[in-house]
Amino acid sequence: MFPVYLTEGYRSFLEQRFPAERRRFAQLAQSQQPEILIISCCDSRVSPSAIFDAGPGELFTIRNVANLVPPYQPDENYHGTSAALEFAVQALEVKHIVVLGHATCGGVKAYAQKAKPLSEGNFIGKWVSLVEPAVAKAGDPEAPNYLTRLEYAVVAQGLENLMTFPFVKERVEDGRLQLHGAHFGVASGSLVVRDPETGAFKAPLDTAGLPVRSAAAIACD
Amino acid sequence: MFPVYLTEGYRSFLEQRFPAERRRFAQLAQSQQPEILIISCCDSRVSPSAIFDAGPGELFTIRNVANLVPPYQPDENYHGTSAALEFAVQALEVKHIVVLGHATCGGVKAYAQKAKPLSEGNFIGKWVSLVEPAVAKAGDPEAPNYLTRLEYAVVAQGLENLMTFPFVKERVEDGRLQLHGAHFGVASGSLVVRDPETGAFKAPLDTAGLPVRSAAAIACD
Amino acid sequence: MFPVYLTEGYRSFLEQRFPAERRRFAQLAQSQQPEILIISCCDSRVSPSAIFDAGPGELFTIRNVANLVPPYQPDENYHGTSAALEFAVQALEVKHIVVLGHATCGGVKAYAQKAKPLSEGNFIGKWVSLVEPAVAKAGDPEAPNYLTRLEYAVVAQGLENLMTFPFVKERVEDGRLQLHGAHFGVASGSLVVRDPETGAFKAPLDTAGLPVRSAAAIACD
Amino acid sequence: MFPVYLTEGYRSFLEQRFPAERRRFAQLAQSQQPEILIISCCDSRVSPSAIFDAGPGELFTIRNVANLVPPYQPDENYHGTSAALEFAVQALEVKHIVVLGHATCGGVKAYAQKAKPLSEGNFIGKWVSLVEPAVAKAGDPEAPNYLTRLEYAVVAQGLENLMTFPFVKERVEDGRLQLHGAHFGVASGSLVVRDPETGAFKAPLDTAGLPVRSAAAIACD
Repeated sequence: MFPVYLTEGYRSFLEQRFPAERRRFAQLAQSQQPEILIISCCDSRVSPSAIFDAGPGELFTIRNVANLVPPYQPDENYHGTSAALEFAVQALEVKHIVVLGHATCGGVKAYAQKAKPLSEGNFIGKWVSLVEPAVAKAGDPEAPNYLTRLEYAVVAQGLENLMTFPFVKERVEDGRLQLHGAHFGVASGSLVVRDPETGAFKAPLDTAGLPVRSAAAIACD
Repeated sequence: MFPVYLTEGYRSFLEQRFPAERRRFAQLAQSQQPEILIISCCDSRVSPSAIFDAGPGELFTIRNVANLVPPYQPDENYHGTSAALEFAVQALEVKHIVVLGHATCGGVKAYAQKAKPLSEGNFIGKWVSLVEPAVAKAGDPEAPNYLTRLEYAVVAQGLENLMTFPFVKERVEDGRLQLHGAHFGVASGSLVVRDPETGAFKAPLDTAGLPVRSAAAIACD
Repeated sequence: MFPVYLTEGYRSFLEQRFPAERRRFAQLAQSQQPEILIISCCDSRVSPSAIFDAGPGELFTIRNVANLVPPYQPDENYHGTSAALEFAVQALEVKHIVVLGHATCGGVKAYAQKAKPLSEGNFIGKWVSLVEPAVAKAGDPEAPNYLTRLEYAVVAQGLENLMTFPFVKERVEDGRLQLHGAHFGVASGSLVVRDPETGAFKAPLDTAGLPVRSAAAIACD
Repeated sequence: MFPVYLTEGYRSFLEQRFPAERRRFAQLAQSQQPEILIISCCDSRVSPSAIFDAGPGELFTIRNVANLVPPYQPDENYHGTSAALEFAVQALEVKHIVVLGHATCGGVKAYAQKAKPLSEGNFIGKWVSLVEPAVAKAGDPEAPNYLTRLEYAVVAQGLENLMTFPFVKERVEDGRLQLHGAHFGVASGSLVVRDPETGAFKAPLDTAGLPVRSAAAIACD
């Protein structure tokens, strides 16, 4: 039987969200025109559409383990993330790409702790080996908060890898496309975005230039 | 600058959703224990957490173009979808996997219409070639509603491909894991789920055995 | 560490419920004077204070597996339920006792299906043997809904067993104490109470004589 | 007639709480999977589901007089509390057990003041004799706050007695189960939890390490 959680959740969608957005869904019936591509983690605690309170049609969303961006590798294999990236950039012509990392990421941790294979195929082991080039950006593994620094580094590395795709590089350079890094804190609801100048992660600024921060993030200052 | 749509959406999340779910986020701070894996499309109109009104921690979510499940292929390449599947089943021990297709899927259409490569790498062309084995299940390409039938067939094929993974097969056979297919209609908000006996897609049933259907779906009868 | 679910739940209690009921809690600081004793199950889905939206100080509550009332047995052993019953009736002088059963009761099922011992001590096996005298009241085990009928019979048997306590019998007979049976449906939110004349379980009546029923219970008619 | 307080409370549940939690109740229709067992008092002022703002399905709850845990005693008698403990640990595999004491506990007081039997059966007298081993932990009976210290000691003794159950001991030792002590203040709404290192009772800490305390508790500093 279809999971009760989903059936009842769908009922709730039909009763509450869908009536409020019926017009938008009707408008979107034939095609989508999102301006933003989000590359985030499969993690159940990190739903981009929830964190950004996004309506239908707004976020083209890739979700893979540890929000990884493989480098450009045009061979005969299946590249799910690269395919979605190509579709978003070349077919939908999105204007922004956001790589969204998050706290206590199981994929980053599996890499850092050299976790044992989960099955004979060792799919996770191979996939998270994509974290490798980020290590140099993460600082001392023995110092505090290493996993958080590594999560930040994975985001920065993802932005670098995006630039290895010729169609991304070209559009970034001519100004049609912008790349962004961000990190979600889960427990406190805090979101920080990467300053492209300094590489530091800080609260996003609104149009008045004021930081948008959670109460918990403010309390921890 | 970080997209205004996201900064303001995050503000809305902080003011509305996060306070209502602060307890759940705190509880989830250290780890996730979702019972459901959703494999759905990157499409901006199809957010599983919206369609199922899911709270934080509930849905481990893979999103790739056309909600495709590659068959088991334990080689040296990166397999993002297989890695996420392995993590969900072997590490998180989810109890349900839902392959969620949707209407007017650009990836399925790209395959059906043999679209031209979007870039030199032709990532989408190779990725959507995974649709191929589903064609035989979709019926006459000249008859009406072929694309919808092909979307349904992609879901059915995904369920078949899931069973090529030994760790999935074992758990399905001993009852620890259930596989489900579903399809979201976008325009009308209709959701249908696949009957494992007949292969037909119908409204999901609630615990009283009554179908949960959108007003539009009812009106179309 | 104390469970986050409880710490955050307590925060929620402090912020919402406690301020609204601070006066009542202050009034109750030295002693309680409840008029109702509820004997219900430990089951996590059946909280009497939730189902009856009860405020602090209103319900003296025994919760044991399968809401069982052992018969009067004045020996040297520890009788937790009989002790609580004695305290409620003799010290607090409650005016009502409600035995509250519920749907899909694990304890009743363990008895009906002769479940294997859960540990060497077999505490559950011995405890649910108290269901035995109710069997004769439950009808044909092969006919549909046997477990529900057995749950009803356990409630009826509990009311009978209450009358084996001299201090209960005396007060019921002189009108100071009333005994009631009820059953909660979980899935549909339906509550039914036992008609002392006929033994049938029906929706409770309000002071205007109208049944108070859930929408689901109405829909199932 | 069924008590009006309950009928009207049930109406309130149907109109307010049930619609908000219909999905959760539907999901719970077939079985429960609570992670926490609470052992608390029957006292009408101490509802665990209220104090922890717990939703349906979250707390498996034993309520007996004075929240007592009898020691392991595998004989032929009925042991209601041990049976519920066995069910929670062995069948439901809860991860936490909380023994929750409270202020002005009538059962503890009855023991301390050697209250007269309440009936010929003297059920309370025998039951609260389980307080006996806690006396040595409570300090000088003539010094101030003896009853509070005895309530704390009963909680500590309960935790000790839990460890006499082989199935509890085994799971605590291999890390699958954690034991906790707590005490609720009634009048001020204050909750304190037992520090397993020092045995002191203090405010619980949230995930940021900050104490969660009632305004009254803060004012009393």
